[in-house]
Amino acid sequence: MVESNPKRQLVIIGGAEDKEGDSQILREFVRRAGGTKANIVIMTAATELPREVGENYIRVFERLGAENVRIIDTETRDDASSSTALQAIDKATGIFFTGGDQARITSILKDTEIDTAIHKRYGEGAVIAGTSAGAAVMPDKMIVEGDSQTNPRIETVEMGPGMGFLPGVVIDQHFSQRGRLGRLISALVLEPAVLGFGIDENTAMVVTDSQIEVIGEGAVTIVDESDATYNNAGEILKDEPLAICGAKLHILPHGFKFDLKTRQPILNNGSVANVSVGVS
Amino acid sequence: MVESNPKRQLVIIGGAEDKEGDSQILREFVRRAGGTKANIVIMTAATELPREVGENYIRVFERLGAENVRIIDTETRDDASSSTALQAIDKATGIFFTGGDQARITSILKDTEIDTAIHKRYGEGAVIAGTSAGAAVMPDKMIVEGDSQTNPRIETVEMGPGMGFLPGVVIDQHFSQRGRLGRLISALVLEPAVLGFGIDENTAMVVTDSQIEVIGEGAVTIVDESDATYNNAGEILKDEPLAICGAKLHILPHGFKFDLKTRQPILNNGSVANVSVGVS
Repeated sequence: MVESNPKRQLVIIGGAEDKEGDSQILREFVRRAGGTKANIVIMTAATELPREVGENYIRVFERLGAENVRIIDTETRDDASSSTALQAIDKATGIFFTGGDQARITSILKDTEIDTAIHKRYGEGAVIAGTSAGAAVMPDKMIVEGDSQTNPRIETVEMGPGMGFLPGVVIDQHFSQRGRLGRLISALVLEPAVLGFGIDENTAMVVTDSQIEVIGEGAVTIVDESDATYNNAGEILKDEPLAICGAKLHILPHGFKFDLKTRQPILNNGSVANVSVGVS
Repeated sequence: MVESNPKRQLVIIGGAEDKEGDSQILREFVRRAGGTKANIVIMTAATELPREVGENYIRVFERLGAENVRIIDTETRDDASSSTALQAIDKATGIFFTGGDQARITSILKDTEIDTAIHKRYGEGAVIAGTSAGAAVMPDKMIVEGDSQTNPRIETVEMGPGMGFLPGVVIDQHFSQRGRLGRLISALVLEPAVLGFGIDENTAMVVTDSQIEVIGEGAVTIVDESDATYNNAGEILKDEPLAICGAKLHILPHGFKFDLKTRQPILNNGSVANVSVGVS
C-alpha cells in the first residue's frame, strides 16, 4: 500500500453530513480510501456513544460498498496502544474520526502509539477524515470549546493542541448554522494563524497536499489575515472585544478550490480569482 | 433650529440595546438630540404593540432627562399625513424608530407626508435613530426578511425599498447573535452594494455625515466588496449557493471609526488602518 510519493489527503467535514441519501461527502471519503476495496477504521474516541455512532457509520460505508470497516474505540489512553487497534490502523486506507467532544480525542489519543500509527498511514497516502469534533482536531492548535453567536472576544474561545494533520490553520465547524464567525476570528487572532476555515454542516473541505476543494451543501468561509492591517489582540484585556481590520474573506461553495500555498481561491471553472491585487 | 450647515446624524442600533442600566446607546441618541432640551418623537410603525413599546422608550428618554418625548403611532398610511404628527416631527430634534417588522415601517410611511417631513428634519440636523427593524430601514434598499444561520444564497433574503437615510449600503442587525454573515453577504451581492454592515445587539453605528463611530457592547462587522475579485451572483440559480472571493472584512468594536468615503477603518487611537495597501 505504500506509494513512492503518496498524496496527503484529508476530508474535513463541518458536521451533520448526509448519511441517508446520496451521502456525497462520505462517498468521496470512501472513494478516496479505495472504494469497494477500502479498508476503513472508525475512530470513536470523541463520543460517549461509540457503538451507536460507530455502527451508524459502518452502515453507511458498507452501503457504499466498502468491504472492510471496523470501529476502533478508545476510552482511555491505555486503549490507544492496543495491538489489535495498531494492526488495524496499519492496514487502513481510510481513517474516520466521528463527532463528539474534540477534547476527548486529543486527551485519549494525542502522543500515543495510535497517534503515531495514524500519522504514519497519513504520510503513506491513507485518507484521514473527521466530522464536527473530528474536524476540529485536524490543525495543530484547535478550538477546544467556545461561544457561538458572539462578536470576537478573547474569552470566547479556549484553544489547545490538535492532532496536527493540517498545521498552521484554524478550523471551525457547524459554521453558518451556529453563527461562528466571531469564534473563528477569535481563534485566528489568538492562535495566531493566517488562515481560518469555517466549514458549514453537510459540507467538507477535501485537502490533497496543498489544494483544498469544497464539496457539499453549504460553503467554506475562509478568513485570510495575511493582509490584515491591524488587530488589537496585544492591547486588550480578556473580556474586551477584539478588533480586526482588512482581513480577506472568501466564501466558497461546492466545486470551488483554494490553494494553501498561494492563498488564492480557484473558481469552479478552474480559473484563479487573483486576490493579491485589488481590482477596485 | 435650522443650522446653516447642519450635520447629518444617524444612530443605527443592532437591537436589544440596554434600557435599564447605563443605556450608553440611547444616552448618545438623547445627547445628540439636544440632551435635556431634546424634542423626541418615537415612531412605532414597526410594532403591533405601539403603546407598550413606545412607553418603554418614553421611560428611558425621560429618565435620561429629555423633557419632550412623544409617541407617533401610525397604523395606516392615512395616519401618516396626520397634521398633529407632522407638527411634532417639524419640531423634533430626535426621531427614533422602534423595532418590530421593517416592512410595516416602509409600507405605512414610505413616500407619505411624514416620510418627507422626517427627511426634511434629517437634512436640518435632527438625529434619526432606529433599532432592529428601525435599523433595517436606514438604507435605500433593505433586507425585508431572510434566513439566519445559513451560508449565502439568493433565496435566503428578500430585499425591498428602505427609508433611504443611508443610501448605497446594506445593513443587518442582531448580527453576531443570530449568525447573519450569510444573510448580509447575500444582500450585499444581490443589491449590489459595496459596503455591508452587520450590527450586533446592544451596539450601534453612529453616523455623522460620512463618518461612522461604533459604540456599545459588541461590534460592527463591515464587509467591503469593492476589492472583491469574483462573485457568482450572475451565474447561479435561486437555490444555489453564492460564492464571493476577496472581499475585505473589518470587525470594529466600541471607539473604532470607519470613513464611508475612503472605506477605511480608523483605530480607537485615531490613526488610519490603511487597508488599500496589503502589508503581508
